[in-house]
Amino acid sequence: MARLSMAAGLVGGIEAGGTKLVCAVGSGPGERMLARASFPTGDRPAEILAKVAEWFQDQEGRHGSLGALGIASFGPVDLNPDSAKYGFITSTPKPGWRDTDLVGRLRASFPGIPIGFDTDVNGAALGEHIWGNASGLSDFVYVTLGTGIGAGAMVGGRLLHGLVHPEMGHMRLPPAPGDDFPGVCPYHSACWEGLCSGPAILARTGMRAEDLPADHPAWSLTIRYIAEAVANITCVLSPRRVILGGGVRKGGRLGEGRFFQQVREKLREVLNGYIITPALGSDIDRYLVPPLLGDDAGVCGAMALGRSVAREGEPS
Amino acid sequence: MARLSMAAGLVGGIEAGGTKLVCAVGSGPGERMLARASFPTGDRPAEILAKVAEWFQDQEGRHGSLGALGIASFGPVDLNPDSAKYGFITSTPKPGWRDTDLVGRLRASFPGIPIGFDTDVNGAALGEHIWGNASGLSDFVYVTLGTGIGAGAMVGGRLLHGLVHPEMGHMRLPPAPGDDFPGVCPYHSACWEGLCSGPAILARTGMRAEDLPADHPAWSLTIRYIAEAVANITCVLSPRRVILGGGVRKGGRLGEGRFFQQVREKLREVLNGYIITPALGSDIDRYLVPPLLGDDAGVCGAMALGRSVAREGEPS
Repeated sequence: MARLSMAAGLVGGIEAGGTKLVCAVGSGPGERMLARASFPTGDRPAEILAKVAEWFQDQEGRHGSLGALGIASFGPVDLNPDSAKYGFITSTPKPGWRDTDLVGRLRASFPGIPIGFDTDVNGAALGEHIWGNASGLSDFVYVTLGTGIGAGAMVGGRLLHGLVHPEMGHMRLPPAPGDDFPGVCPYHSACWEGLCSGPAILARTGMRAEDLPADHPAWSLTIRYIAEAVANITCVLSPRRVILGGGVRKGGRLGEGRFFQQVREKLREVLNGYIITPALGSDIDRYLVPPLLGDDAGVCGAMALGRSVAREGEPS
Repeated sequence: MARLSMAAGLVGGIEAGGTKLVCAVGSGPGERMLARASFPTGDRPAEILAKVAEWFQDQEGRHGSLGALGIASFGPVDLNPDSAKYGFITSTPKPGWRDTDLVGRLRASFPGIPIGFDTDVNGAALGEHIWGNASGLSDFVYVTLGTGIGAGAMVGGRLLHGLVHPEMGHMRLPPAPGDDFPGVCPYHSACWEGLCSGPAILARTGMRAEDLPADHPAWSLTIRYIAEAVANITCVLSPRRVILGGGVRKGGRLGEGRFFQQVREKLREVLNGYIITPALGSDIDRYLVPPLLGDDAGVCGAMALGRSVAREGEPS
């Protein structure tokens, strides 16, 4: 992917999540975000997407025409440009959303403008690449630890797609000694998501991650599994950095700082010095980091996806 | 990476393995390979690399000048072109080979010609891409299951490097119920390599993989772990195909055909229908395959690495 132009103009971003659709208009994060709104995802995509389109049209009236739209969506999604279902949310269990033509519905409302489309996590990865903690890095991974666990990745400067798209949350991990929690993933029980997502922590402890006391034993288990998963990602993809976003990474009452410190320590323990590089040794504080865009990583990522196609659409 | 020219001319390839250095001269596999030789790796790199250079010089006398050399090496290796140790074997425990300037020594003997350098498995991946079972695929993984377990990968048409290079053999896996074999990896005990490499099978059974009877219970355990690892690779990288090479993939007295069939069945069981694509369903026989180049995947890969820099060196 070519270096993105800083002059892509006004773009719209839609972060389509399982709970809400967050929309924004602007040219970047912070002050460059001119307007934002969110809509409950619900179970009637046609209705909610009509409201989203209406909101963007209203914003165009206030701020001027959009140069592009970007959609960063929960999945699974069809990202194959040659597929008849490109731009669809496909086999989701989310009521009403199966086989929803996300891109098509927006294109009908905004026929003239390019629309970028990718997974929510690839969007967030691109946002961190342009404006955040992956600036200048052509090879890195962005993980969200939230209601689900997913990851986007950039490899050699391009967002990773491959056969479908990564599903890193469904990686299987060695169990911690004595841990008999069966996991909550309906497909794989104790995969990473089945062990460390928000619902997994709730099922394990009866408490939400954000309320979990600093000394609750679930933290050390969760941290251990996250470290095992990041170690496996490191072995498979050899990224230059791993960004951990999502609510769980805030570490509840343990706090984000201590959470990251403990994951880093455990990661070094798991890798055990096999891969020799400062990034996994003295510089590990810069290897495993939170997103610079924080909770805006998703919607900024959607704007970044818009920006990337606005750029492609320009004569070069 | 641009599509490689078929007219790159005569190249030399060196597959540097832990036991032997296999050298070849030609323009491809099969009939296009004009000469080959192998030299024991030993513990005196300067001496053996001088013999290798002499052999190539002799071949130039017979067949004409080499347009390029390719080296596909055991690791860890330094692949960073900006590093002072680019082209070195770095922290290997192999006696004598630590900090060996592989590229520099060959360059001293062949000052005029470009030298391609990568891991043995990235080389094999490139060879399968040009001449083998990954033809036309821009996203796939090549795994070798042998004395060690390693993998190369192509992502978006380019060989994957990242921070260092992948070390997929050191991924950690969930143990099979009741399996108390501790694994043989000195760094991670029961990682993939610690469980499924040739030495792991020998330690588990007292037999070499090639002699292991078809009904030996070690096969079902080995196959299960390989399937778990391929499932994790699928979740992390989303490749379009996974090629399994190396001696263990021949399945000993079980046979290669049954070995692959059983790994595929177990892979489907592990993924459990979560990732919906024909490649992981009805077409799984084409998703998980042996290398078309067979035991020549390594040395052909080295020639492919040479070819890739010969091409880069040409005026475009």
